Amino acid sequence: MITVLYAHPYPNRSIACKALVEAIRPLEGVEVRTLYDLYPDFDIDVPAEQAALEATDALVLLHPIYWYSAPGLLKHYLDVVFVKGWAYGPEGTKLQGKDCLWVATTGGDDEAYSGSGRHEQPFGQFSQPMRQTARYCGMRWLDPFVLHASHQIDAAALAKAAEQLRQRISELKKP
Amino acid sequence: MITVLYAHPYPNRSIACKALVEAIRPLEGVEVRTLYDLYPDFDIDVPAEQAALEATDALVLLHPIYWYSAPGLLKHYLDVVFVKGWAYGPEGTKLQGKDCLWVATTGGDDEAYSGSGRHEQPFGQFSQPMRQTARYCGMRWLDPFVLHASHQIDAAALAKAAEQLRQRISELKKP
Repeated sequence: MITVLYAHPYPNRSIACKALVEAIRPLEGVEVRTLYDLYPDFDIDVPAEQAALEATDALVLLHPIYWYSAPGLLKHYLDVVFVKGWAYGPEGTKLQGKDCLWVATTGGDDEAYSGSGRHEQPFGQFSQPMRQTARYCGMRWLDPFVLHASHQIDAAALAKAAEQLRQRISELKKP
Repeated sequence: MITVLYAHPYPNRSIACKALVEAIRPLEGVEVRTLYDLYPDFDIDVPAEQAALEATDALVLLHPIYWYSAPGLLKHYLDVVFVKGWAYGPEGTKLQGKDCLWVATTGGDDEAYSGSGRHEQPFGQFSQPMRQTARYCGMRWLDPFVLHASHQIDAAALAKAAEQLRQRISELKKP
């Protein structure tokens, strides 16, 4: 079982994230939890989310990059669901050993994410908080799937990316 | 004028952040906006916040570190207040030239934030998203004020830290 936490604040405006999520939704054993639909008021059902995550083998975080990190609702989710005694600390072992795959779309190309670009750093520099969150909870942090310049991508390139993601997700399911 | 965005999800449980914010609240020209009190339902009044920030010379982000970054409400704030056409992009110049001071409390000591510690990285590695957010909006990113091991700190050390922060904030006010 693979659980996708899909967090796009404006899903109707999404092109790239939508293509990615729709490419993996039909896969057997994949459950997509669309956070901004489930919790438009940020009132997260913590027991329901914890139960869903306990039942899964792998966690996929899928969202557009907002200010170099996760959209606010997903960050709030981490704050209230990944809590001490459940995700870490004594008896906090519920996420241990699960795979964690970060799937992110950005508005910048490789050049923008470089020392001379407008984001001043390679994209990997911004991944540390998410990576360490997963690792602190004992999850296995996989090589992230990052789609840059996602608002400018053409249909063929987007379809190719979606197929690549589907392949990555299919491989996750193998024990 | 200095605007403090104070974001503690559980202000009644706070010791360190509370001491820091109370040390600077009485300073002339300092306005504290307590985000979790103002917006318990995450329903941020964007025009009011933008007006407050436009009127300020310096922005102080003061919060405990949750999962290596800002608590969810502050992240949501950045998503909805720091928008294109206001904070960046064409005509998005409203934050340009303002000072930005990040004041963060953590639960780990220096050893925890090292290659051999449980957070695996120096704390500075986790500051990139916030730093770059400020810089992308044209703000001047100041040397962050970080108080480690803030839940274990004794009263004298906390008072000293609070005084150091008050000094930093007082210096901000000088042109």
